[in-house]
Amino acid sequence: MRKIDKLVICGVGLIGGSVALALRQARLVNRIVGVGRRRETLEQALQLGVIDEISTDWAEALDGAEIVLLAMPVGQTDAVAAAMAPHLGPDTLVTDAGSTKRDVIEAIYRHLAAHLPRVVPAHPIAGAEKSGPSAARADLYRKRKVVVTPLPENDAVAVARVRELWAACGAHLFEMTPQEHDRVFAAVSHLPHLLAFGLVHDLAGRANAEELFSYAASGFRDFTRVAGSHPEMWRDICLANRHSLLAELDAYLGELAWLRALLASGDGPALEKVFSEASRARNEWADKAFPATPSGE
Amino acid sequence: MRKIDKLVICGVGLIGGSVALALRQARLVNRIVGVGRRRETLEQALQLGVIDEISTDWAEALDGAEIVLLAMPVGQTDAVAAAMAPHLGPDTLVTDAGSTKRDVIEAIYRHLAAHLPRVVPAHPIAGAEKSGPSAARADLYRKRKVVVTPLPENDAVAVARVRELWAACGAHLFEMTPQEHDRVFAAVSHLPHLLAFGLVHDLAGRANAEELFSYAASGFRDFTRVAGSHPEMWRDICLANRHSLLAELDAYLGELAWLRALLASGDGPALEKVFSEASRARNEWADKAFPATPSGE
Repeated sequence: MRKIDKLVICGVGLIGGSVALALRQARLVNRIVGVGRRRETLEQALQLGVIDEISTDWAEALDGAEIVLLAMPVGQTDAVAAAMAPHLGPDTLVTDAGSTKRDVIEAIYRHLAAHLPRVVPAHPIAGAEKSGPSAARADLYRKRKVVVTPLPENDAVAVARVRELWAACGAHLFEMTPQEHDRVFAAVSHLPHLLAFGLVHDLAGRANAEELFSYAASGFRDFTRVAGSHPEMWRDICLANRHSLLAELDAYLGELAWLRALLASGDGPALEKVFSEASRARNEWADKAFPATPSGE
Repeated sequence: MRKIDKLVICGVGLIGGSVALALRQARLVNRIVGVGRRRETLEQALQLGVIDEISTDWAEALDGAEIVLLAMPVGQTDAVAAAMAPHLGPDTLVTDAGSTKRDVIEAIYRHLAAHLPRVVPAHPIAGAEKSGPSAARADLYRKRKVVVTPLPENDAVAVARVRELWAACGAHLFEMTPQEHDRVFAAVSHLPHLLAFGLVHDLAGRANAEELFSYAASGFRDFTRVAGSHPEMWRDICLANRHSLLAELDAYLGELAWLRALLASGDGPALEKVFSEASRARNEWADKAFPATPSGE
């Protein structure tokens, strides 16, 4: 991959910071400029060596920028795209790391219509329950999937450059339509997050919350890991993808209503059938998807 | 702890097998006899060195037995207690490792009424998504909680001996009433298992299941880890504790109905408040309960 001369990252937390660290480790970037809402976060990223400089001004940040990576919560995409637009040069490539794609693409069409050949939406499938620059790591994307959802207007060279950037972070590249992307991730990512947030919230509000948590063990820890995720990021994802997410939630509520009926009627054979099918599907998937994961905890 | 001369384990899978390995490693048992429904599992446990001998006859197994540990799925407790009763000597101590306690205690009163001073119910809070003798490990209970739910009729010496047995496996001991136990574990263990089984079952039945699973990542892996658990064991737990579990499921369905309304109306501030409270509660709990857990994946 050809070295990036000036990379601008908007949002220097876990997601953006990990791209910075990966490209820096691979010596594929000369200069990383951080942009963001919170001075404190930018200062922290600077001190941690995640970025080289802070910019509080889009005109200055975009001057000579080769690539701009949008890595803030997706709810800010509209405002950020609007703020960038007047200062965006004709050769600068823009990409994003948002967990939803249709809403990001709507903002792109709204504000960056003059730049469509070089605005390439993408989504790295990686995360952690901690957030902020201190959670960033150079290997966050290693062997993870990155889904690129190119626009019909995209320049092939620009798409290739975005793929290169993520490949340099160690990721495997895939392409989907934005619609397909948002449906798939509502099911396998957004819904589990909502369910885990909901369970912890339900229990944390109980009078005996402390006793309950004191007996929660490793199963609960893993089930709720995603509930430790960044609240604003997940508010934005849930709102941005709420139509697909509501459809998935409703399908799941149907499943729970059925399980409730099996429990209430004490239907052991039917419950065991559900559990067996789920257990087989889950373990077959996990053995294939995470072959190195040790059994046990 | 005084060495156990003859230990009988009924059910030599993950739970019973791990007790066997822990006591053997600590050199606290002379002889371990395995009892169970499936010859194949018993043979496997014998080959793995989990047990010293197989018995297919309760009269023989219980002859001279010092301690009997019931570690089969809780749905078998009634039949096993009935089968043991005629052969149980006056000095043999019986304990169990069932994840539910009220149903186990009902079976004890039904079949082992003559032995109540020496039948001490308990529940080790540990598990793994794999099951069977090959999943057993000597350290499964190290630093884990074991809840003893003594009967009013229990002999203090018998309770102390059971506590000793689990302490020898590295566990920390707690006591609760069976009612409190079953309510607490419905919330923090049984419900999360049901929810994870349900989600995997829902997705695995879709026409595009393969595509969905191919994009599922580490968040999904952790959320669904408990869905890899032993189907029969979890069928029995859900049925045995179904009144508490239904109450927890209904509370959770109420939480989901509320989250659904927030999503449908696009109420960002309320969603963020839920996510923030959950995220804070979850991370505070996990940092305290699992201080050694590395952040990130």
